[in-house]
Amino acid sequence: MTDFSTEYFTMNEEQAKEYAIKRLNYFQPDAELSCKEIGDGNLNYVFRIVDHKHKDSIILKQAGPVARISDEFKVSPDRNRIESDILKIQYQYVPEHTPKTYQYDPIMNCFAMEDLSDHEIMRNALVKHQVFPDFADHITTFMANTLLLTSDVVMNHKEKKELVKTFINPELCEISEDLVYTEPFYDCERNEVFPATRPFIEKEIWQDEQLQLETAKLKFDFMTKAQSLIHGDLHTGSIFIKEDSTKVIDPEFAFYGPAGYDIGNLIANLIFAYANGKAEIEDEKERHVFTNYLLTTIKDVIDLFKEKFNRIWSQSEIEQVATYKGFQAAYLDSILADTAAVAGLELCRRIIGLAQVIDITSIEDEAARQQAEERCLRAAKQFILQRETFKDGEDFVALVKSSFQ
Amino acid sequence: MTDFSTEYFTMNEEQAKEYAIKRLNYFQPDAELSCKEIGDGNLNYVFRIVDHKHKDSIILKQAGPVARISDEFKVSPDRNRIESDILKIQYQYVPEHTPKTYQYDPIMNCFAMEDLSDHEIMRNALVKHQVFPDFADHITTFMANTLLLTSDVVMNHKEKKELVKTFINPELCEISEDLVYTEPFYDCERNEVFPATRPFIEKEIWQDEQLQLETAKLKFDFMTKAQSLIHGDLHTGSIFIKEDSTKVIDPEFAFYGPAGYDIGNLIANLIFAYANGKAEIEDEKERHVFTNYLLTTIKDVIDLFKEKFNRIWSQSEIEQVATYKGFQAAYLDSILADTAAVAGLELCRRIIGLAQVIDITSIEDEAARQQAEERCLRAAKQFILQRETFKDGEDFVALVKSSFQ
Repeated sequence: MTDFSTEYFTMNEEQAKEYAIKRLNYFQPDAELSCKEIGDGNLNYVFRIVDHKHKDSIILKQAGPVARISDEFKVSPDRNRIESDILKIQYQYVPEHTPKTYQYDPIMNCFAMEDLSDHEIMRNALVKHQVFPDFADHITTFMANTLLLTSDVVMNHKEKKELVKTFINPELCEISEDLVYTEPFYDCERNEVFPATRPFIEKEIWQDEQLQLETAKLKFDFMTKAQSLIHGDLHTGSIFIKEDSTKVIDPEFAFYGPAGYDIGNLIANLIFAYANGKAEIEDEKERHVFTNYLLTTIKDVIDLFKEKFNRIWSQSEIEQVATYKGFQAAYLDSILADTAAVAGLELCRRIIGLAQVIDITSIEDEAARQQAEERCLRAAKQFILQRETFKDGEDFVALVKSSFQ
Repeated sequence: MTDFSTEYFTMNEEQAKEYAIKRLNYFQPDAELSCKEIGDGNLNYVFRIVDHKHKDSIILKQAGPVARISDEFKVSPDRNRIESDILKIQYQYVPEHTPKTYQYDPIMNCFAMEDLSDHEIMRNALVKHQVFPDFADHITTFMANTLLLTSDVVMNHKEKKELVKTFINPELCEISEDLVYTEPFYDCERNEVFPATRPFIEKEIWQDEQLQLETAKLKFDFMTKAQSLIHGDLHTGSIFIKEDSTKVIDPEFAFYGPAGYDIGNLIANLIFAYANGKAEIEDEKERHVFTNYLLTTIKDVIDLFKEKFNRIWSQSEIEQVATYKGFQAAYLDSILADTAAVAGLELCRRIIGLAQVIDITSIEDEAARQQAEERCLRAAKQFILQRETFKDGEDFVALVKSSFQ
């Protein structure tokens, strides 16, 4: 008999199954359970527990004692409390795109959630060049609701301040501050630079003082701008998808930060998928269909976000001064500038920094990978340096197109 | 025998004396105590307890259950915990300009602090047209240290986030959000407009859509920009002064906000003193001495702040990206823009809004008061609309001079 109520320990599959029987009020008494650890993330153990008799299943997610990304990152298991809390909030705003969660256990640092095994991690689907026509519609519903409804535009300011307090997230923010905002912009030994791209990076990134200055300003924005309760890690690896369903997972990086962070993060990762399609699809027609799908999706993510953001704004009871003439447009412009900037930062950090993406690393031909990386970095620079000029979807698409010519 | 250990109640003078004897480990056993409530603030009861035998004294500050500014503001007594905590932090950085505090009592919501009765509230001294040549030097030491050392430039980012959490201050921030950033900019019934100035306010403030838009952006900055642990109410009524000493008191509005807030607040209140001197001093030579002192002080507050800020920056171990070329200047420019903006907001809110200042209200001649108010408001508009152009002390002084011509 395992004791789950006294002291934290990381569970194995057998213990996770036992936990499900004894501690989760979910399965029926005659359930026939099996359990498998399926985590491929960096910070957690993810157990899938299946009841073969009643064809039901659930996910049990437990925080490891140390972030699995590397022993250098020590991350306290409190992140699972944050994740469980934020999933509840996101579920309240957009139940259709948020997994349902069950009880959080502060001793074992775990919580149970809806099993989405019929979905696939979007990044994996995109490197197989699958397309999801409804994705832009789904994800903009998620972003417009979570980002606007948690901001001072709509939320009672005192309630918002309590949420800011609840979601202060020093350890996970430190990871982003280091990996996204700092290390990619100098020759940090933890970077993982693809040798063929190194000369380009040395000249175009590490020697560009204007670019560095802008990244420093953006880092301070990230550390100080408590605008919206953001997901904090909204790339295509944090999205479960199937044809008619999109679910956003893994919000353990959540905190009050710049609203544009989530949107920019996503845009950059769509560009990685685009770069992969450009490099890896040999058949011209197939390539055209896939890359065109991504350009349309990038455009729609921006434009549908704007449309839904403006619709929610007009339907909500908003902060009095936010009704002043010109404020709504200025506020949205500022989110889009942050979006462009973060798209640029994410493009840089996934190519130069420690945590890379398979969209790029799976390109086996050296010249093709180098070309893909340099194109992404060229776009990245413009996104950061010209961030104030990105006003709608077409502006984002135009830069992607011109960078990949 | 009064019970101080069970339940909060507001003390009278006799009970405060009893509290000092029984709960403060401060006076000697044979002390001969007297106690007087001397509070003239809006939120607290302030008891001065004197030991006549040993010529010693202390201040006991207790939070009232409801803000005394008006029954409309309900402010929880937790603000005294915030005040006691922040005074300890400020004392650690600038002991020479912060009153020493003694134990905080979470039941009675009170704490004891150094008696500064040999000092005078600076606003009261200024309306008597006294000058304090060392003030700019003193207050810039206070501001440069508290604002820079609590920011992400110098402070460890995780420690800073814990302080952000500790000083989330929903109720006091709401007062500033309403009284400083909202009500002065429309015809709010709680405003206290001087009738003679009303036509000017209606035309130049309430009908200026560009001005309103900028105040809305600034309000969102105030609610979201967790830059420095600011005092939050640093006007001349929060400063105890004598010739050779300056002590900053009443930091109950403290929270992580824009660093320029404190500096701008102070600048505006120096301008009120200047307006008072212009209007009230009949002798030309005396008037010149006093108003010149204030112009010099305004200039020095900005320039000495910059100088000390840059010195601390160069002597501290700072955040890596803050060392990038151009960052320090950009960061300081942005603080000065916030300074100008808040100077403008404070000038407006003290003339138009609920909480007025005696520098202005004590001007008995109607035409003179109207002129003083309109000059202040004229400067205020430029401070807000042109905030990016204020780079050094001379820029601030030039606007004051031109507005009062």
